[in-house]
Amino acid sequence: MSFITLTTDFGSRDPFAGILKGVIYSINPNAKITDITNDVSPQNIQQANFILKTSYRFFPKNSIHLCVVDPGVGSARKPLLIETSDYFFIGPNNGIFSTIIETENIKQVIELTEKKYWLPEVSQTFHGRDIFAPIAAFLSQGKNPKHFGNQINVNELITLPKLEMRQNKNTIAAQVQFIDHFGNIITNIPNDILFDSIKGTINNHNFDGLVQSFSGSNDKNLSAIKGSSGYMEIFIRNGNAAHTINAKFGDKLTVSFV
Amino acid sequence: MSFITLTTDFGSRDPFAGILKGVIYSINPNAKITDITNDVSPQNIQQANFILKTSYRFFPKNSIHLCVVDPGVGSARKPLLIETSDYFFIGPNNGIFSTIIETENIKQVIELTEKKYWLPEVSQTFHGRDIFAPIAAFLSQGKNPKHFGNQINVNELITLPKLEMRQNKNTIAAQVQFIDHFGNIITNIPNDILFDSIKGTINNHNFDGLVQSFSGSNDKNLSAIKGSSGYMEIFIRNGNAAHTINAKFGDKLTVSFV
Amino acid sequence: MSFITLTTDFGSRDPFAGILKGVIYSINPNAKITDITNDVSPQNIQQANFILKTSYRFFPKNSIHLCVVDPGVGSARKPLLIETSDYFFIGPNNGIFSTIIETENIKQVIELTEKKYWLPEVSQTFHGRDIFAPIAAFLSQGKNPKHFGNQINVNELITLPKLEMRQNKNTIAAQVQFIDHFGNIITNIPNDILFDSIKGTINNHNFDGLVQSFSGSNDKNLSAIKGSSGYMEIFIRNGNAAHTINAKFGDKLTVSFV
Repeated sequence: MSFITLTTDFGSRDPFAGILKGVIYSINPNAKITDITNDVSPQNIQQANFILKTSYRFFPKNSIHLCVVDPGVGSARKPLLIETSDYFFIGPNNGIFSTIIETENIKQVIELTEKKYWLPEVSQTFHGRDIFAPIAAFLSQGKNPKHFGNQINVNELITLPKLEMRQNKNTIAAQVQFIDHFGNIITNIPNDILFDSIKGTINNHNFDGLVQSFSGSNDKNLSAIKGSSGYMEIFIRNGNAAHTINAKFGDKLTVSFV
Repeated sequence: MSFITLTTDFGSRDPFAGILKGVIYSINPNAKITDITNDVSPQNIQQANFILKTSYRFFPKNSIHLCVVDPGVGSARKPLLIETSDYFFIGPNNGIFSTIIETENIKQVIELTEKKYWLPEVSQTFHGRDIFAPIAAFLSQGKNPKHFGNQINVNELITLPKLEMRQNKNTIAAQVQFIDHFGNIITNIPNDILFDSIKGTINNHNFDGLVQSFSGSNDKNLSAIKGSSGYMEIFIRNGNAAHTINAKFGDKLTVSFV
Repeated sequence: MSFITLTTDFGSRDPFAGILKGVIYSINPNAKITDITNDVSPQNIQQANFILKTSYRFFPKNSIHLCVVDPGVGSARKPLLIETSDYFFIGPNNGIFSTIIETENIKQVIELTEKKYWLPEVSQTFHGRDIFAPIAAFLSQGKNPKHFGNQINVNELITLPKLEMRQNKNTIAAQVQFIDHFGNIITNIPNDILFDSIKGTINNHNFDGLVQSFSGSNDKNLSAIKGSSGYMEIFIRNGNAAHTINAKFGDKLTVSFV
């Protein structure tokens, strides 16, 4: 139970992510901490949810996923520990765990209220350091989650509104759920509902596919491929598709089978 | 004594920070290295000092803080090991340790001169790799600091000029000491001299406070809050305050109690 | 054999590098993973080769260098394990290992074909996660490289075209091989062929040297120094030389001894 991952919007320029690690090691010097990313766009809950959903299951069973994208820090939003069959998730109740809540087998949810497991002094603006990191550290030492607060009902957990993904007979209406740093446009169409040959439109640009590899396209046209996150992606070989067609989160697209 | 932290301006794009870690592991494979940040603005000693002062005490006792922001590399500036009651600090004598020097209980200061603990070949431009990292590694193995060179007097330590922070009866004249990547403006006014209700001016913009959380403000106005680094911060909810009012290090502000 | 380094173009914003680490720890919880960098410019094989060549030898003997800059992912390019006298290199056969191939003593090259050491499901676009990371993890546990596939001939290894570096009696014609994030211009002239006093021209700007430290120059002129990577660098003290003269990879320069 000693693996802890970080998914935050703390950036790499400020010391915030490093401070979290210091707090954890001060409590459990044997913790093994891995960054998933600290470069979530500031306060972008939707993005954090996507990053977490494509990552968490690649870590060892019983890993503790510490997720701090927390625009409501210091307000009434509840600090949580969610225990699923295979993992633990620690962070604010604001939607960052939407996919976990919708897809994982949840064993219990604890509202973090027991102050003796927090840092002695709790700031108004940095609960990552003062509450979430210490809880992750004590949990990684084998402390029972029930010590950290009281169970709350799964119904209290906040999930984000869903993007549209409607499949008719030969067409799909869908949306963009993520842009990666290569400029690949990750849609919310699951790979496994796709046939081999499709055409589509996004932001008044056409694309077709599916190709078998990035190099199976040319350098000019938008192409579609089954992406590694489990969803169809639109790309330009050796280019940045999102910049080229000004794509962003939530943009709509249509796909038809040919 | 096996925790080593890095605070550098080496960036994440170049291999410099990774190379430091390789050098350390080659000497002490059991070292545990944590980045505080490698994205200090190039050669920005003031920024490095702030980052270090808000971070170092969150790490386990006896941690070794390796700080390499070193515009004078290869010149006469002295390479140092500073031992305090609780920590070790390794880096150049150029002001990056100002806060440590002014606030910590210093047990000894060693000028690093003993070449047998350096890499065999020392470059003119990368003492982080060739001198500081090996010293941190040997120290983390328990080597006595006295082996690395001779003690020098605390008076030889360079500290940065102080920012202005003048408190009159009902007003404070202060300065900006850091901008974080959210755009929050961190002043040099300690939280603990602040009353609940203040008004202030910075760069011809007004702000008031203190609010209890970021979400205790609206999305338009500048507000003040007790920050997690121990100093008053000025922010805009869901916005970037520093960009909005073009704030930067050293900008002056005034605060009055109301 | 438990040290694994990462050199990738996965960026710090996306979860890709974190996912690689999760895959590795899931197979070998005792692996020790260090980022050299994950911020190679997207698909920039030349840059990855330079970063690797200046870094790999600073890591402990038997370290496994995992290098994933892989524009041809999913195509016919071969996935490789290269074993040298001191290290292991894992990644695609596309030129990222040019310097290793040209300078190291290669003991064997394995084409990775044995699917039982890959993730059960292999995507078309993320062999870093599905093939290279698991192989690195199994290798770090001591698994014999021969299990992962068949030996191929060193002649099959792809190397990048060489930059020009021609030395006449009193002059050198050379090229830029890397720009670091400080804006220092790293040429391909080895330090050890340089005399103390030179003059040179790059992009219609003059420089001279060699200076003994960055601070041995003024803030206005381009100067040359023996760089820490083993090659002559051109810099501006307290400035960004590459921006100032718009230097980039491949730019030509001339040097004459004076």
